[in-house]
Amino acid sequence: MERKITVLPGDGIGPEVVASAVRVLQVIGKRFNHTFHLGYATIGGAAIDQHNNPLPEETIEMCENSDAILLGAVGGPKWDQNPPELRPEKGLLRIRKHFDLFANLRPVKAFPSLLDASPLKREVAENVDLMIVRELTGGVYFGEPRMRTENGAIDTTVYSKAEVERIVENAFELARLRGGKLCSVDKANVLETSRLWREVVEAKKKDYPDVIVEHNLVDSVAMKLITNPGHYDVVVTENMFGDILSDEASVITGSLGVLPSASIRGDNFGLYEPVHGSAPEIAGQGVANPAATILSVAMMLQYSFGLTEEAAEIERAVSAVFDDGYFTADLARDGNRILSTNEWTDKVINEIDTSF
Amino acid sequence: MERKITVLPGDGIGPEVVASAVRVLQVIGKRFNHTFHLGYATIGGAAIDQHNNPLPEETIEMCENSDAILLGAVGGPKWDQNPPELRPEKGLLRIRKHFDLFANLRPVKAFPSLLDASPLKREVAENVDLMIVRELTGGVYFGEPRMRTENGAIDTTVYSKAEVERIVENAFELARLRGGKLCSVDKANVLETSRLWREVVEAKKKDYPDVIVEHNLVDSVAMKLITNPGHYDVVVTENMFGDILSDEASVITGSLGVLPSASIRGDNFGLYEPVHGSAPEIAGQGVANPAATILSVAMMLQYSFGLTEEAAEIERAVSAVFDDGYFTADLARDGNRILSTNEWTDKVINEIDTSF
Ligand SMILES: CC(C)[C@H](C(=O)O)[C@@H](O)C(=O)O
Ligand SMILES: CC(C)[C@H](C(=O)O)[C@@H](O)C(=O)O
Repeated sequence: MERKITVLPGDGIGPEVVASAVRVLQVIGKRFNHTFHLGYATIGGAAIDQHNNPLPEETIEMCENSDAILLGAVGGPKWDQNPPELRPEKGLLRIRKHFDLFANLRPVKAFPSLLDASPLKREVAENVDLMIVRELTGGVYFGEPRMRTENGAIDTTVYSKAEVERIVENAFELARLRGGKLCSVDKANVLETSRLWREVVEAKKKDYPDVIVEHNLVDSVAMKLITNPGHYDVVVTENMFGDILSDEASVITGSLGVLPSASIRGDNFGLYEPVHGSAPEIAGQGVANPAATILSVAMMLQYSFGLTEEAAEIERAVSAVFDDGYFTADLARDGNRILSTNEWTDKVINEIDTSF
Repeated sequence: MERKITVLPGDGIGPEVVASAVRVLQVIGKRFNHTFHLGYATIGGAAIDQHNNPLPEETIEMCENSDAILLGAVGGPKWDQNPPELRPEKGLLRIRKHFDLFANLRPVKAFPSLLDASPLKREVAENVDLMIVRELTGGVYFGEPRMRTENGAIDTTVYSKAEVERIVENAFELARLRGGKLCSVDKANVLETSRLWREVVEAKKKDYPDVIVEHNLVDSVAMKLITNPGHYDVVVTENMFGDILSDEASVITGSLGVLPSASIRGDNFGLYEPVHGSAPEIAGQGVANPAATILSVAMMLQYSFGLTEEAAEIERAVSAVFDDGYFTADLARDGNRILSTNEWTDKVINEIDTSF
């Protein structure tokens, strides 16, 4: 197979972890006989510095001519005082909206060898294997009016029925492929958009008799993600709730540094990025954990290219390196061997290479 | 001192836990020489059944002639299919708004003898002693327009500068009385109301040079409440974020069943209620945990009546009974003695009575 990928290293540790992930991608290409053509472009702070625009035209164009996007991370103190339109995260919000990447998939799965790093008791965290499906291009993130008023400010949460339908369908499909359970999260006791959301889920569920559906209030899910995260399979929710809950979920297994994400839209195109941020405080030192970006490449192989075996091979290799006791500094525990970004990546690559 | 209190037992276990809390209140009255006049009224499901209105006029009137309100809990499956206007929680939303109870205080403190029930590792949960201050009468809960549209639905988050100022001031005052630290939570990288919020906090902070202030994004706080809850002292945020984060915070110490809350407005009037719900599945069995409602009475004594010593005595007694190994069924662990609601309340009362 031949595919074009736009690589957006971004800011902070972005370039370092992306470099690692690209190395792994190329090794997979070699081993499984695929050709991945890479083009590099800027986004976020790097793009502001070079083009005074967090999402330059040339970046959009290159992405439009690609099959998928691999992103590092954006942001840093350097741009914190910029006006809203010249903030790194504006690039992120715009690229999601421009490419209509309405479904953000955030899998959270316990790696047994990382559970010591979890703030949760082992017995609470060990069975976690869930996927948060967050609506990414609607809701209060983009609703109008959003503005200052004479004596205050307003934001608007807007959802059309069609927007809710497509994300809910997406979540049902994923639930069918995974554990067959779907938890839809809303605040239907307060919000009109939530009542719409709940109705859509109720209507769609007739098409998925094999999926067990529950409706849960967002406050209640915020609790249960901590007390009983093993309960969840696929969790679907709107943009703002999804932002909060997916970040909450990301720390329960102790593996924030290793969590990937996909932002997709129903065809094969998608954007893949680690869940963690740009970590400017450790940028440039070669100590960042590349696992999340490497696993984001696995998601790309699976969701954009349909290369299930290749994706599984990356996941297996990452898991094996952890099980062998190799970690980057962020996951350091007594007795572990601490490797640099590149050394750790080498281990993953060796694991893939020697296992033909 | 003489005070009038309106008691709203509500639904499910509400009447049981309220009865316990009232017994404790009267014992405190006797010991410290105060007279508490109690009047009973309905709210929630009970009020819908009797008056076809989740917040009847006579309830409002009685509350208006009182110095404080003690509430049990509202809701249950019986009313789940009712139209929005005839839902139990509508009574809750209306009483908050009617009495302008804009500040919801939710303290979360680890009880050493309950830490085994926490989903978090002991070393993560043991130093927790925080207070979430949630804005309770504004934001998306009450903003207009909120409605179905031709092809979807909208909700509106509205805040006036004055609304933000009063809650932020409240939080600063509390921080000054507690650990001197304030974390203001917003989503200023996306929302206009959050940018207003942040500006107000920045302006107010000049009046509180003794308080250390930080701004944190809501998604980041959702993580840190799990990874490092001991970091927080006072956390202030808007209504919807506060709903989610305060429920999230409520489970980290394993003591959801024992957490009280206050909803106040700046003068001495306030509404006090346990954080837990009406738990219809165990209602009427005499097994509910009354600790949260008893501790809500302690908050009433402190915040509405200024009776600091009396409040502290209740807290001491509750803590002592836990330390003696007495628990209600919800907190059962091997080797604990399981008591009924009334037996457990007796222990607390004995503790107060014998310690003159
Ligand atoms: C940077 C920010 C705008 C963004 C969001 O809120 O969507 C981030 O938190 C995320 O989840 O990707
Ligand atoms: C019942 C519901 C409307 C209410 C809220 O969201 O405020 C509840 O969750 C709470 O926190 O008291």
